[in-house]
Amino acid sequence: MTMVRILDTTLRDGEQAPGFSMTPEGKLRMAKALAALNVDVIEAGFAASGQRDADAIAEIARQVEGPVICSLARATRGDILAASAALAPAPRRRIHVFIGTSPLHREFKLHMSREKVLENIRTAIAYARGFTDDVEFSAEDAIRTERDYLVECLSAAAEAGATTLNVPDTVGYTTPDEIYDLFRFLTANVDCSDETIFSAHNHDDLGMAVANSLAAIRGGARQVECAMNGIGERAGNCALEDIVMALKTRADFFQAETAIDTTRIMAASRILAQITNTPPPRNKSIVGANAFAHESGIHQHGILQNRETYEIMKPEDIGLATEAIVLGKHSGRHALAARAQALGYVLTGEKLESAFTAFRTVADEVGIVDTARLLALLAEQESGRPQRLWSLSKVDIRAPVSSKSHPVARVELEHGERGRVTDIASAPGALDAAFAAVSQMIRVPARVHALEMQYIAADPEQPASDGQGANVLVEIQIEVEGEIFAGRARARDILPCCVSAYIDAASNAEAVRAVRGSFSAGSRAA
Amino acid sequence: MTMVRILDTTLRDGEQAPGFSMTPEGKLRMAKALAALNVDVIEAGFAASGQRDADAIAEIARQVEGPVICSLARATRGDILAASAALAPAPRRRIHVFIGTSPLHREFKLHMSREKVLENIRTAIAYARGFTDDVEFSAEDAIRTERDYLVECLSAAAEAGATTLNVPDTVGYTTPDEIYDLFRFLTANVDCSDETIFSAHNHDDLGMAVANSLAAIRGGARQVECAMNGIGERAGNCALEDIVMALKTRADFFQAETAIDTTRIMAASRILAQITNTPPPRNKSIVGANAFAHESGIHQHGILQNRETYEIMKPEDIGLATEAIVLGKHSGRHALAARAQALGYVLTGEKLESAFTAFRTVADEVGIVDTARLLALLAEQESGRPQRLWSLSKVDIRAPVSSKSHPVARVELEHGERGRVTDIASAPGALDAAFAAVSQMIRVPARVHALEMQYIAADPEQPASDGQGANVLVEIQIEVEGEIFAGRARARDILPCCVSAYIDAASNAEAVRAVRGSFSAGSRAA
Repeated sequence: MTMVRILDTTLRDGEQAPGFSMTPEGKLRMAKALAALNVDVIEAGFAASGQRDADAIAEIARQVEGPVICSLARATRGDILAASAALAPAPRRRIHVFIGTSPLHREFKLHMSREKVLENIRTAIAYARGFTDDVEFSAEDAIRTERDYLVECLSAAAEAGATTLNVPDTVGYTTPDEIYDLFRFLTANVDCSDETIFSAHNHDDLGMAVANSLAAIRGGARQVECAMNGIGERAGNCALEDIVMALKTRADFFQAETAIDTTRIMAASRILAQITNTPPPRNKSIVGANAFAHESGIHQHGILQNRETYEIMKPEDIGLATEAIVLGKHSGRHALAARAQALGYVLTGEKLESAFTAFRTVADEVGIVDTARLLALLAEQESGRPQRLWSLSKVDIRAPVSSKSHPVARVELEHGERGRVTDIASAPGALDAAFAAVSQMIRVPARVHALEMQYIAADPEQPASDGQGANVLVEIQIEVEGEIFAGRARARDILPCCVSAYIDAASNAEAVRAVRGSFSAGSRAA
Repeated sequence: MTMVRILDTTLRDGEQAPGFSMTPEGKLRMAKALAALNVDVIEAGFAASGQRDADAIAEIARQVEGPVICSLARATRGDILAASAALAPAPRRRIHVFIGTSPLHREFKLHMSREKVLENIRTAIAYARGFTDDVEFSAEDAIRTERDYLVECLSAAAEAGATTLNVPDTVGYTTPDEIYDLFRFLTANVDCSDETIFSAHNHDDLGMAVANSLAAIRGGARQVECAMNGIGERAGNCALEDIVMALKTRADFFQAETAIDTTRIMAASRILAQITNTPPPRNKSIVGANAFAHESGIHQHGILQNRETYEIMKPEDIGLATEAIVLGKHSGRHALAARAQALGYVLTGEKLESAFTAFRTVADEVGIVDTARLLALLAEQESGRPQRLWSLSKVDIRAPVSSKSHPVARVELEHGERGRVTDIASAPGALDAAFAAVSQMIRVPARVHALEMQYIAADPEQPASDGQGANVLVEIQIEVEGEIFAGRARARDILPCCVSAYIDAASNAEAVRAVRGSFSAGSRAA
């Protein structure tokens, strides 16, 4: 097995994409998650781009153990000095020097001749070697650089002391066949030592970053530059999780491996989502919410028979504790009966039919039926009485009377058996106050884990004949004693919609509690 | 140039993924967008999976002109009948029959022998041909099927009358080299007529759906099955926009083309986002918000010199009217001066320095600085007086007094020069009422285009030393006379946060109006 090094550039190429800015604290947290993943190199930033970036690199260099810490630098003394200063606290540090080598970059951006670029490479790499033995050189836009000249540039960098030679597809233009051929050519023709590492850095503009990186490895690359969740400039970089899991799942074909602890992948992906406020899309390979979900009835039938029918990886390989099956409106009787059985309910014959009818109604309404919602539904079928008893009648907020006091929420709930219940609570925010009042009445000790609202404006092209007009959709996740429960609601106004979603989630939690016995005593929320 | 057919399965494989359910009206709207794109085949659903799906297919068959309309069907009489009935109104219709052919599918899911599966194929295809001349056969899990047996299955299907032979990588397991080799083998060995079309259907579980589809084309595939925005089971299908733009951008390499009108891509992508309430991620290739955005200072400098430096496609090729440059916290002086110049402001020397300082402050606060926000900033620099004069003092809601009346919002704004202004408005929802009150005072005739809220719960692992606790972030887009303006706000409570974001967006619109002259007279919002 060939060993492939992973250079993670989430904090540099990833962070510089619009919408993925990170605070220095966020960067540090992410760097620690990358160290836990066991990446070989963390590209922590671009020191010369600003004091904030330099400080963040220095903090990571100081606190993060394990990987080599790296800063990007243009081929100038100033940039290399800035990188070296920021990296100083790291036990192992890399300076990553780049310059454009393609005709377009030389002529339109740099205004330099071929000779001038070569001279810059030699001078800059030698200067960087004065600060550390680990120097990487990148020929920016290498893919569009003349092959003979690219060999000259990489050879010059190697001769001046570069230990890693990166051949980026800066604009995401190449194809697997082309890049395979290019790496075969370069590894055969560049004048460098046997220890020199060739590296690939691919962008996803045409959707081929992962395939191109794998083709580069087959062509001789021994380092891949990538980013968690595939973030980065434009369409992003090769996704770390994709390249790592492709090599692992298809080791038979690629005969290559990485040092990554794959069971830390989900944790790192989630931390990135948190610090950038941007979860990966549902259909993102490996880390998306749907990656291991199978909603369609036919696929589920297959999965129930043999997991390999539709799964080529195990969720636990990436640190995901999950049920293999997501129930939704496309799920069939097979899938419902199987999930019910796993939860201790045997459904056959008429019982299955009536449960399936009830399930379809819920699925049509909420989309995905998770375990808690399914438990409520099954208990309802079993007992013949409704389990989701709470609903919102009214919520009012009294604004704070002075700048030092808090808003007060008055919430009126309707309980299917006990009738109307009212309580008030106060908190720094109106939403928190309303949630606290609900918690007091329902007696589920919950805190909000995540809440997302969408305000769906009326479509002016559609006649508003249904009389609904604008609409609010809230999806909430609450945490109850370490477990996450989901809820959702649709309403005309935001505050009642948020509160209804909270009640929905709390009812799901209650359904699970009813099955398992109550939550730990004395943990009633204040 | 080889012609490659596009079968779009957004409405079938895409719709069956958790989180991407569509209403029948949504499906019809999407089908019309696909017809405008000029796809060859629309797979509109799976008629036998339920009445709702069958009805949606029939409606599309009735109303959508141009493409062949197709329904999926298992290899059973019942499924084929259902497909045929739903497709009846279409002038050109295709029945797409599938059965699992791999050992795993035969043994664990179907419990059928090799012979039995072959018999099913023959019977089902012949039966389907009784309803239409256009029949597609899919060997489910083809990639994991024994090669000799796969040849038998496809030959049997062709002999029974299948005109398209689909070879799906159902679990997203293969690599470009393997699938190229497989298609070369199948096109050489399957017993069929020269008119038979071989088709690829790839999933993105290992991030290689696009590269695999392209490799299949090189191996002899003449149809690709794909979905808008790459949606579909698990990690999704090959993205339509990726395969189409890869073939177009790299026609030099692939020597193949499609009939797609690429300038309709963005419109179709946006309609899908709207009907599923799920926009593609920012870093999605081709259609993501970042695909043509370049925030980093270095890249921007390059782009300003020559657009090809970092762009391999033109935004207008996919129907995107945009500025090539997004300004953000990584943008440099070059980019700011260039954008300012495009807007009619010449910035040099000290003027550039002071504008740049102001710009950085705004960019740090809001992330991306769009044209409207930049105009406000430039006007402020030019005139020496603040342009963003409105801010929220207070918003109160009076609940409806009866079930027939509407809530009333009382909003108090602070104007930098005019002092405090108060107005009230009523609407079916509290949020709409508050927005209406603001519009009356600011006199910007706006309607909400999109509004997203995130409630960021306090991180229990971080000490709440900053005293902030929970927080609300609202991002809003408003439409003012056909143009979209963005705004955002962070606050403790949801209602004031939404209103502040609305004011922010309206202020951006006002800044543009101040530069261009006022909006059309008489369009003041009620």
